[in-house]
Amino acid sequence: MWGGRFSEATDKFVAEFTASVNFDKRMANQDIDGSIAHATMLGRCGIITSEESQKIVDGLNQIKQEIADGKFVWSVALEDVHMNVESRLTALIGDVGKKLHTGRSRNDQVATDIRLYMREQTDVVLGLLKRLQLGLLDLASEHTETIMPGFTHLQTAQPVSFAHHVMAWFEMLIRDSERFISTRKRINQMPLGSAALAGTTYPIDRTITAELLGFEGICQNSLDAVSDRDFAIEFTSNASILMMHLSRMSEEIILWMSAQFGFVVVPDRFCTGSSIMPQKKNPDVPELVRGKTARVFGQLTTLLTLMKNQPLAYNKDNQEDKEPLFDCVDTLTGSLLAFADMLPNLIPNKENMRNATMKGYATATDLADYLVKKGLPFRDAHEVVGKTVALGVAKGVDISELSLAELQGFSDLIGDDVFEYLTLEGSLNARNHIGGTAPNQVKMAIERGRERVENLKYLNST
Amino acid sequence: MWGGRFSEATDKFVAEFTASVNFDKRMANQDIDGSIAHATMLGRCGIITSEESQKIVDGLNQIKQEIADGKFVWSVALEDVHMNVESRLTALIGDVGKKLHTGRSRNDQVATDIRLYMREQTDVVLGLLKRLQLGLLDLASEHTETIMPGFTHLQTAQPVSFAHHVMAWFEMLIRDSERFISTRKRINQMPLGSAALAGTTYPIDRTITAELLGFEGICQNSLDAVSDRDFAIEFTSNASILMMHLSRMSEEIILWMSAQFGFVVVPDRFCTGSSIMPQKKNPDVPELVRGKTARVFGQLTTLLTLMKNQPLAYNKDNQEDKEPLFDCVDTLTGSLLAFADMLPNLIPNKENMRNATMKGYATATDLADYLVKKGLPFRDAHEVVGKTVALGVAKGVDISELSLAELQGFSDLIGDDVFEYLTLEGSLNARNHIGGTAPNQVKMAIERGRERVENLKYLNST
Amino acid sequence: MWGGRFSEATDKFVAEFTASVNFDKRMANQDIDGSIAHATMLGRCGIITSEESQKIVDGLNQIKQEIADGKFVWSVALEDVHMNVESRLTALIGDVGKKLHTGRSRNDQVATDIRLYMREQTDVVLGLLKRLQLGLLDLASEHTETIMPGFTHLQTAQPVSFAHHVMAWFEMLIRDSERFISTRKRINQMPLGSAALAGTTYPIDRTITAELLGFEGICQNSLDAVSDRDFAIEFTSNASILMMHLSRMSEEIILWMSAQFGFVVVPDRFCTGSSIMPQKKNPDVPELVRGKTARVFGQLTTLLTLMKNQPLAYNKDNQEDKEPLFDCVDTLTGSLLAFADMLPNLIPNKENMRNATMKGYATATDLADYLVKKGLPFRDAHEVVGKTVALGVAKGVDISELSLAELQGFSDLIGDDVFEYLTLEGSLNARNHIGGTAPNQVKMAIERGRERVENLKYLNST
Amino acid sequence: MWGGRFSEATDKFVAEFTASVNFDKRMANQDIDGSIAHATMLGRCGIITSEESQKIVDGLNQIKQEIADGKFVWSVALEDVHMNVESRLTALIGDVGKKLHTGRSRNDQVATDIRLYMREQTDVVLGLLKRLQLGLLDLASEHTETIMPGFTHLQTAQPVSFAHHVMAWFEMLIRDSERFISTRKRINQMPLGSAALAGTTYPIDRTITAELLGFEGICQNSLDAVSDRDFAIEFTSNASILMMHLSRMSEEIILWMSAQFGFVVVPDRFCTGSSIMPQKKNPDVPELVRGKTARVFGQLTTLLTLMKNQPLAYNKDNQEDKEPLFDCVDTLTGSLLAFADMLPNLIPNKENMRNATMKGYATATDLADYLVKKGLPFRDAHEVVGKTVALGVAKGVDISELSLAELQGFSDLIGDDVFEYLTLEGSLNARNHIGGTAPNQVKMAIERGRERVENLKYLNST
Repeated sequence: MWGGRFSEATDKFVAEFTASVNFDKRMANQDIDGSIAHATMLGRCGIITSEESQKIVDGLNQIKQEIADGKFVWSVALEDVHMNVESRLTALIGDVGKKLHTGRSRNDQVATDIRLYMREQTDVVLGLLKRLQLGLLDLASEHTETIMPGFTHLQTAQPVSFAHHVMAWFEMLIRDSERFISTRKRINQMPLGSAALAGTTYPIDRTITAELLGFEGICQNSLDAVSDRDFAIEFTSNASILMMHLSRMSEEIILWMSAQFGFVVVPDRFCTGSSIMPQKKNPDVPELVRGKTARVFGQLTTLLTLMKNQPLAYNKDNQEDKEPLFDCVDTLTGSLLAFADMLPNLIPNKENMRNATMKGYATATDLADYLVKKGLPFRDAHEVVGKTVALGVAKGVDISELSLAELQGFSDLIGDDVFEYLTLEGSLNARNHIGGTAPNQVKMAIERGRERVENLKYLNST
Repeated sequence: MWGGRFSEATDKFVAEFTASVNFDKRMANQDIDGSIAHATMLGRCGIITSEESQKIVDGLNQIKQEIADGKFVWSVALEDVHMNVESRLTALIGDVGKKLHTGRSRNDQVATDIRLYMREQTDVVLGLLKRLQLGLLDLASEHTETIMPGFTHLQTAQPVSFAHHVMAWFEMLIRDSERFISTRKRINQMPLGSAALAGTTYPIDRTITAELLGFEGICQNSLDAVSDRDFAIEFTSNASILMMHLSRMSEEIILWMSAQFGFVVVPDRFCTGSSIMPQKKNPDVPELVRGKTARVFGQLTTLLTLMKNQPLAYNKDNQEDKEPLFDCVDTLTGSLLAFADMLPNLIPNKENMRNATMKGYATATDLADYLVKKGLPFRDAHEVVGKTVALGVAKGVDISELSLAELQGFSDLIGDDVFEYLTLEGSLNARNHIGGTAPNQVKMAIERGRERVENLKYLNST
Repeated sequence: MWGGRFSEATDKFVAEFTASVNFDKRMANQDIDGSIAHATMLGRCGIITSEESQKIVDGLNQIKQEIADGKFVWSVALEDVHMNVESRLTALIGDVGKKLHTGRSRNDQVATDIRLYMREQTDVVLGLLKRLQLGLLDLASEHTETIMPGFTHLQTAQPVSFAHHVMAWFEMLIRDSERFISTRKRINQMPLGSAALAGTTYPIDRTITAELLGFEGICQNSLDAVSDRDFAIEFTSNASILMMHLSRMSEEIILWMSAQFGFVVVPDRFCTGSSIMPQKKNPDVPELVRGKTARVFGQLTTLLTLMKNQPLAYNKDNQEDKEPLFDCVDTLTGSLLAFADMLPNLIPNKENMRNATMKGYATATDLADYLVKKGLPFRDAHEVVGKTVALGVAKGVDISELSLAELQGFSDLIGDDVFEYLTLEGSLNARNHIGGTAPNQVKMAIERGRERVENLKYLNST
Repeated sequence: MWGGRFSEATDKFVAEFTASVNFDKRMANQDIDGSIAHATMLGRCGIITSEESQKIVDGLNQIKQEIADGKFVWSVALEDVHMNVESRLTALIGDVGKKLHTGRSRNDQVATDIRLYMREQTDVVLGLLKRLQLGLLDLASEHTETIMPGFTHLQTAQPVSFAHHVMAWFEMLIRDSERFISTRKRINQMPLGSAALAGTTYPIDRTITAELLGFEGICQNSLDAVSDRDFAIEFTSNASILMMHLSRMSEEIILWMSAQFGFVVVPDRFCTGSSIMPQKKNPDVPELVRGKTARVFGQLTTLLTLMKNQPLAYNKDNQEDKEPLFDCVDTLTGSLLAFADMLPNLIPNKENMRNATMKGYATATDLADYLVKKGLPFRDAHEVVGKTVALGVAKGVDISELSLAELQGFSDLIGDDVFEYLTLEGSLNARNHIGGTAPNQVKMAIERGRERVENLKYLNST
């Protein structure tokens, strides 16, 4: 396709080393859709005849079908998806096929393909996120009064409900949706018409192709349009943050499935066993997702580094954007699918959770707050309770198990009403404001959550 | 501050190793603003008396002044900015100062401080971006007819105008503004009121503090609110993409300043010389910015990795978010400031640019397009021109310097009107559609650019 | 220092933005040592007189003392440590000071300084590693019969000794020492004499300076010598792997300190409390080290990215190598110091460890091995034990608590000798080969460990 | 294989999501070699009979042949390469095949496989490095007197020879070889015998398997042996540094191929053209290698992040180590192969290089050195030459083109012997010490280079 100027054939190894068809054929449908829109525009603008335009469109539709049927023969010698499709087109419809490339270049063509592909995958991600969010809301709604220890530093801190914990996950995922919706706008801009780098000399009308392809806007500068991969980095950054969230959830599920915690049961179908230890039931899915998170971080590093020093406009380095990006998409959608299946099926062990909350002096803050309400400045109350806990540790009992006399030994502000403040339910119910763990607050948060999920806007209005 | 339960003093080295005051004192103003709002709310809700509230507010304002005056004495023994301020408060106003910490924790306090700080810095970044964008528009408006080679693969591709190239930079920076505006919404949510992790038992009203502090929304889940650092990662990701853009511009400026290119002069004040080679004038500022880009990428790696495996809620790992984030802010704002000063002062060398465009067969595509308009399919025209270029290379001349007879030797479609298509101006003017390099298109793009800069919404409406 | 060619003074902000003295003054001693060696060599080679050489050396020694005494005045206007020192030298000894820079450049000077600094810091790291390794050997030697659960997938797998676990940590750290010893050789090569990039026209003798400065070798190519930062990346990569090890240990210590595990007590001095929850004792040091690991990973990303696209030879980008590298050194040595203090003082809770091992069917593999020894193929034995465990789970008991009749229900190969195989001690003692957890094997591993620590070679033989 | 304990079949999607056979089958030969050694050891130790041992070995050899012949049927349902092989073994030789897994686990098996694979690939890398190093020595030996500009900050600095520049590349690659040789020792340690995590109860002899498999040492701690992936990170870190070197070379080749530099011609077979611009000849191979460097950096980020928080011993996260590592190997060996083919075939354009050296005042330092030798202190000479250059810039000529009178206007130390110092050859020859660019020095460096390449030790002595 560019042999005219060259005196030497490409070396066989070099041909394979530089070819991209093995991975960019994934965008074949997008490539053909872009070409159909381009040919249609060329026809409408009179750059080719309408008969030529129709012939090209028909040929492209036939190729699309061949690919769908698995009958298309891909050739590494033809370098990439673009030349494979165009070559087949000319074979099918003759010389008129050679007119398809009028007024465009592979540079704007590939940029268009990737954006169409990423727009589609963004919608897949948003759909999976929604499914997972709804699953979490369902799970939470059953457990607003299931008490478990809230941890800081993995030390027992204060009682929370399991629903409250699940709703923390939900919040993370809502932000993820927001980010992908925001990025989708910057993905959905059309580079086509930028040609190689400077635009084209043909009287094209970019608004026609943009409308045909459902783009929200048109890239405003041809040099930038063929060089810009910001949207790919943004997507991967969003994916990294989302995977980081899944990794944090995984970490907790793995902890909770340990014999020491025993907080949840994960259904067998998300676990595997050991080839040597017959008793094992391993949390494979969360472990794998935790591992896959590292993979997406690496892809973000790759994409940023890839772009860092490139002068304008297109350089071959950019070919290396696709494999990390495709793998990012696969990793992300696979992990979301696994989580959307698994998380709503977590089975909390209420008894173990409650017992754990009883250990670790989870209501010590409540005692401090009690003292403050009796008039002690907070800092002083904190110190009183610190000493009370030290006694509990020494005696091996919770502070709610100390006698009133023992408690009063630390402060005469303590009365026998103290014990109701030291129950788990008392502690939970007392945190009764927006964002707090009190059951009625969490119930309202779940209700608001349903509305928020439904009100996230991300699909094209057309 | 937490000595009650402990039997052993903190080791001196450990105290220093775990203290954060040396870097988190940067957020002192935000910390005090948050405390003033908190104390005001406590007073309005009747959790403390309005006299107590006022006393605390007065004390805090005094401390703010002490810090502004450089009179505040920071103590590593007091660990962090929060305890330094609170300790001083109690010294100033007595025991009532101990009531400030009622209904909050350092966990929600530090999360609030960072968000206030990042909101402020986001506005600084947006302001610098605007200044740089306007500077580029001014520069571009002088050079819509300054012709330079457009490159792909650093090989001469097609003529473009210097203005068109500058406008490609402008487009990158507009996307950067959009991203920071989007992230600002997620920064500007209030965690205060989440207390340690589960909310508080005091009858707080979070809407009061949110309004006092100018937050757009309230974090909806206390566990998430104290654990979430998404906004920091998002900011750093945006910063990474922006720095990547500055690095690409730097790469081009460095190339253009080389003796080989000689496309631009950078004023002396942005350059330095050599201690040994008296002739040197080095592009220090763009080189340094290119280097600093790597630094911000590293910070993104750090922040993502930091959060990846943390179970809820706050863990001490999170203390490590601040130094990378602060350094990211400094690096970004310093680099933007340097660029906002430097870029509008670039002086293009028009003669060198034009001469370079004459080399490298920049109008070869125009010849191909000419042939297509005469009826040849594009792929065939491409091959004809390939052979024409090969002759030019062999003879050491541009194709516009070949004779008509020589040209017609490759195709009899070529007439003597061909030479007007092969001029640089002809090539430039022909790319006359949205996004193309034709001078009138670029002028319109500059006009639209001014409107777009003004219409970017990012400042608080208050 | 390079004003001759310039027509405009450096902008004040640019001067600060590009100056390095605020961080490179850390290498002042190395800079002076290098200059002393250089001046000595210049004198010996007759490039300057021996009186001049001595005068310069005396002046430099005086400056070294001024810095040690905190009396040296650093100036940002003088850009970097090199010009600060040289400027002071000329002030002290007059025009002869201007001869010091003969036959060298800041490019080879700074490369020499960094290498001297990194060599010194490598020895500090190796010393701290040795201290930590010896501490672990001491800890292990007390606990070869302290039984704890070995985990895979955080599920109870098989009994191991606490000593065996500690010795796994030891193995990691031995590899770390090996890596730093290997890297030290590549650090300890001398770039001095490469001048700006091409060598110098003076008749220098690089072997003299190399010997004076204790370098093992001389960089063989001047262009490479001033451009090479491999050693910095290697050091940071080694540091990343080492921090990764500390992070894994931290993760375990944090888990083990949780109320749910309760395996170890970390002395109070390595922990801190909470400003709001009086009962908290948080594992701050391991959490912080876990967090700091992310920081070092980021520095590795930075340094690799920094170097990736630089053409030869020195570019200003390289100035950005120092801050990440210095911070890497500080983070690494601080973390090692904290661990060398903390780890040998871990106090295992033997009772909790033993009880935990009894849960989770830790000896299931032993039952399978028992069946194999009775003649069943391993895969079949695995299946028998799987069913046995399922019965145990159903009944809520360990397999050692099932009756002989119950066991025989799964395989008639089981005899009443089975129970000795199912004890924790039986399981432990049975793994009696190099690398296994049997107490006598671990004792031998500890002995070999002491020899290995002593035989690691890393200090200069001189 | 672990169904005994489970009540529910693995979900189909989960089975695929968690399976590794699609990528770990790459290690099939290593897996079988390890199994053959293990079965041989089991037979020699009497754990199985020698007939059983022989039968297993024969079966495994048959499977190896089936794989080589492309006849082996891989099954995702069997999860991984290990179970695929073992399942086929049992199909071939019956129940005795089930005895192969005696005394080992998939955890030590996979660790052994990876190490065998990485050892082999390290030798491939070292072989390719050697070929590339020898090619550079050949290229350099032809160009010790080909003069080109040496750059710092991409500004002309001083004349160097093309050979000197090529030898800078050579130095980088020698360090790369050293690093891989060092890492190979840590790869070549045997984990087999560690079983799941604690060793095995069978009387195995690990020295037998180690000798059969050519391991230099035996992993000394079973917990560590199944958890350690340091060697994979080290390999990837070495690969990152090596790719960084190739990226720097690529950057230079791309620059040098631009119309502006015109320093080298890269043979057509390493380049490709444009689908739209007929004149283009793009440096695809170096651009792609520059891009692929980013990919390897990402893999390093992935592997470090993957390991960072894992408690001992094996976790499923580790399955994610293979794809990055395999891709790293492929990227590295492909890039090295391309460079080993391409670099020795670079054709320097001597005339362009010489002309470029004449621009940019490359001999200004020589004038300064001349003045120093006449008695001026270096700093003063620097200033004199700075003013001389300023005059040259103003007049548009090199300093060697100024008249003697003009030169003497800046310093009366200048005599008419000055012009010989200002020639390119004079400048080159004057840098005559180890590491300098003088032709005879570079020739000696090339000779030493040949010895160094041959003396690098990396192949197993057996």
